[in-house]
Amino acid sequence: MFAKEIYIRRREELKKSVGSGLILLLGNGEAAINYEGNAYAFRQDSSFIYYVGLDTPDLAYIIDIENNKEYLLGNELTIDDIIWMGNLPSLKERASQVGIETTLPFSQLPTLLAKNRQIHYLRPYRYRNQLILSELLNKNTDAAIAGYSIELTKAIIRMRLIKSSEELKELEDAGATGYAMHIVAMKMCQPGVSEREIAGMIEGLAISKGTRVSFATILSMNGQTLHNHDHSGILQSGRLMLCDAGAENINYYASDFTRTTAVGGSYSQQQKEIHNIVLKALDDSIALAQPGITYKSVHRNVYKIIFEGLRNLGLLKGDTEEALNAGVPALFMPHGLGHAMGLDVHDMEDLGETLVGYDDENQRDTMFGYRSLRFGKQLEPGHVLTVEPGIYFIPQLIEKWEKEKINADFIHFNEVKKYLNFGGIRLEDDILITENGCRPIYEKRLPTTVEEIEKAVKS
Amino acid sequence: MFAKEIYIRRREELKKSVGSGLILLLGNGEAAINYEGNAYAFRQDSSFIYYVGLDTPDLAYIIDIENNKEYLLGNELTIDDIIWMGNLPSLKERASQVGIETTLPFSQLPTLLAKNRQIHYLRPYRYRNQLILSELLNKNTDAAIAGYSIELTKAIIRMRLIKSSEELKELEDAGATGYAMHIVAMKMCQPGVSEREIAGMIEGLAISKGTRVSFATILSMNGQTLHNHDHSGILQSGRLMLCDAGAENINYYASDFTRTTAVGGSYSQQQKEIHNIVLKALDDSIALAQPGITYKSVHRNVYKIIFEGLRNLGLLKGDTEEALNAGVPALFMPHGLGHAMGLDVHDMEDLGETLVGYDDENQRDTMFGYRSLRFGKQLEPGHVLTVEPGIYFIPQLIEKWEKEKINADFIHFNEVKKYLNFGGIRLEDDILITENGCRPIYEKRLPTTVEEIEKAVKS
Repeated sequence: MFAKEIYIRRREELKKSVGSGLILLLGNGEAAINYEGNAYAFRQDSSFIYYVGLDTPDLAYIIDIENNKEYLLGNELTIDDIIWMGNLPSLKERASQVGIETTLPFSQLPTLLAKNRQIHYLRPYRYRNQLILSELLNKNTDAAIAGYSIELTKAIIRMRLIKSSEELKELEDAGATGYAMHIVAMKMCQPGVSEREIAGMIEGLAISKGTRVSFATILSMNGQTLHNHDHSGILQSGRLMLCDAGAENINYYASDFTRTTAVGGSYSQQQKEIHNIVLKALDDSIALAQPGITYKSVHRNVYKIIFEGLRNLGLLKGDTEEALNAGVPALFMPHGLGHAMGLDVHDMEDLGETLVGYDDENQRDTMFGYRSLRFGKQLEPGHVLTVEPGIYFIPQLIEKWEKEKINADFIHFNEVKKYLNFGGIRLEDDILITENGCRPIYEKRLPTTVEEIEKAVKS
Repeated sequence: MFAKEIYIRRREELKKSVGSGLILLLGNGEAAINYEGNAYAFRQDSSFIYYVGLDTPDLAYIIDIENNKEYLLGNELTIDDIIWMGNLPSLKERASQVGIETTLPFSQLPTLLAKNRQIHYLRPYRYRNQLILSELLNKNTDAAIAGYSIELTKAIIRMRLIKSSEELKELEDAGATGYAMHIVAMKMCQPGVSEREIAGMIEGLAISKGTRVSFATILSMNGQTLHNHDHSGILQSGRLMLCDAGAENINYYASDFTRTTAVGGSYSQQQKEIHNIVLKALDDSIALAQPGITYKSVHRNVYKIIFEGLRNLGLLKGDTEEALNAGVPALFMPHGLGHAMGLDVHDMEDLGETLVGYDDENQRDTMFGYRSLRFGKQLEPGHVLTVEPGIYFIPQLIEKWEKEKINADFIHFNEVKKYLNFGGIRLEDDILITENGCRPIYEKRLPTTVEEIEKAVKS
């Protein structure tokens, strides 16, 4: 939790930005695993944490803008609670820690909202909050979801997208744990070790130092399978282990790094060549990212590097500009270059990925590859983004393109098919856009070159 | 997953037991953490796994008893799914692995149920399934929850309560990971180490070897706070660390052990004395548990041991039987002796704790302490239970009893108050009721005596 002045200032700004009506921020409840009493580790809603700072279940916060009043709603502990749960601060005390004077029982929520006033609320992404809003508003859940406030959503995105200095410290803290996780993964990257064992160990490290992993770890020899949370493999010599993992720190800020490591720490010539193209894409992107240019153009530059790199290796042919306009590199990197990061690893994805990453001037592309870019708009100081280029050989996609003759003029399919058992390589760092360029969000960079990674595995 | 014959046999038995109508088993969906795309690690519903064996989201299973038909409902992968997620077996193939012939798209669920037939379903504990049932049945969520089938519930409890040999192997596997977790915790139990670090490490171990911890780890110097998931303490010499933790294995079976360790591995005289009373309660319970006696009577015997042990130490006075009838030991152990365990650590708690643990002959007690016993009925071969006696000095509870003169004739409050900074000790093992008695569910017992634990910490 930050100093209360920070929350007061944020709420003041939000109030001015929205201008009128009631603002309702619903906190999260517990989420049952296999019965109500066995819940997943609690995670507060990110916007609730940003404005209210309190991370226990079953809270709500309301601003009545016209009457300049604010309320924290929740339930006080009973004497029985104290016997079983120990002495904990009262709701009143907790409200006071974040600068809120008035507290009310959670059951007062309908009364507070029943005033024929405009209610601004965010799109609920949890079933529990969909149910609560459905009852509060007397609408079915689909209508309750659809009725979210676009004004409130945009006001929050504007504020949360620009990270303050105290937020950067939290992001650096999450980054330090992410660093430690990847070093452990590299050291464990030996033939015969199971993916599950490594994934479990680094997840334990994230829990030890903070709250949890910031997203489900990807750790697999099948790096070409992009949405892959399977950890059933046993590491084999000659293969690559792609590890995309990060930590959520104690205050819910995220880190997100990817490194791809040759099992046992010895790269083949083929692996080195592909690694070095991805490395150049990463380093050039970091050199390029700065205020005034769009992230879409940085993504396009990565496609240029991938195209030319693979052309040098004899997999592709033709003119660079023509190939980029045709979307050729998307065969090898069908995903976007990166996304905003903060209190969520995909920052504010609950509020709408396109609202976060695009605007009227910079709209989402419809072309395969480009369309997967989560954040395409102009960069501004205070943006925090991931940079995650990759090259993958996805058998199903290569087969589809060859069969359907997609971009066949640019591709030597027979050469490409020599890489069908390659897997994939991704390298990912996190950056802050500054006044003049960008800087990485970590004190120490993870091993990134082939030589550095080989050394880390063998150390 | 077991051999398909096992699932076929279980479903056949369930069908016979319920007798008529439609049986609907709803699988679980993903549960969002902070946005839809960032979900907690998936956990299938336990009854769904027991009868259907498939552990991916968004499935449903229906038996039409009169027409002797069964259906698995779910969605097939698209070509896009395969590009992003790799080659996975089709719904049809997966159904066939567990002996189900007919598959249908999930969207067919309303059609299948719209036949004016009696629909047996279980009480939904997740908001998502409450919403699905509410829409399917065209009732509000409260009514949808209340409309669950008591016949189906009882039939499932009867079957799942008696563990088969293949289930015991799974429980032993979960037990082996639980063993490893506690050994790590004991070795790390040194002054200056943070509770969070140890809790994270053992949670990582559970993930490495299986799916997750079987419940939120309790690991704290404040063992007297029974519902305590705070891990913010730094271990101090002279204190005790209570660790109640277990693993869920790859097939969702649970383990649940508790050990209490003196920080640094050296017990004070006071700690030894209390430890030895709890140890006697544990060992005597394991010696006593057998078919034909109730678990309530084993719990009562633990209260006898605690009463007499603390009377020997000069904290209590008076006649044992009178004290037990008055509920005196509940001051030191306000919780129950144990619970059923299986696919859930509190087995089938979603179906109703009282339906699982009590019956017409053995009803739940209303007295403080006794009333918290989750499983009180007569023991039968195949029951799997935890045995978890403890002695705690809960300042708020001692204060309340002294102030309200509760059981004052039996208690030397001035002596008890010498233990206000003691914390609490709990020891817990898992047992299987056999034909003649019971046996522990592990190959190797965790260090349990003071000497064994001291040795484990210092090794």
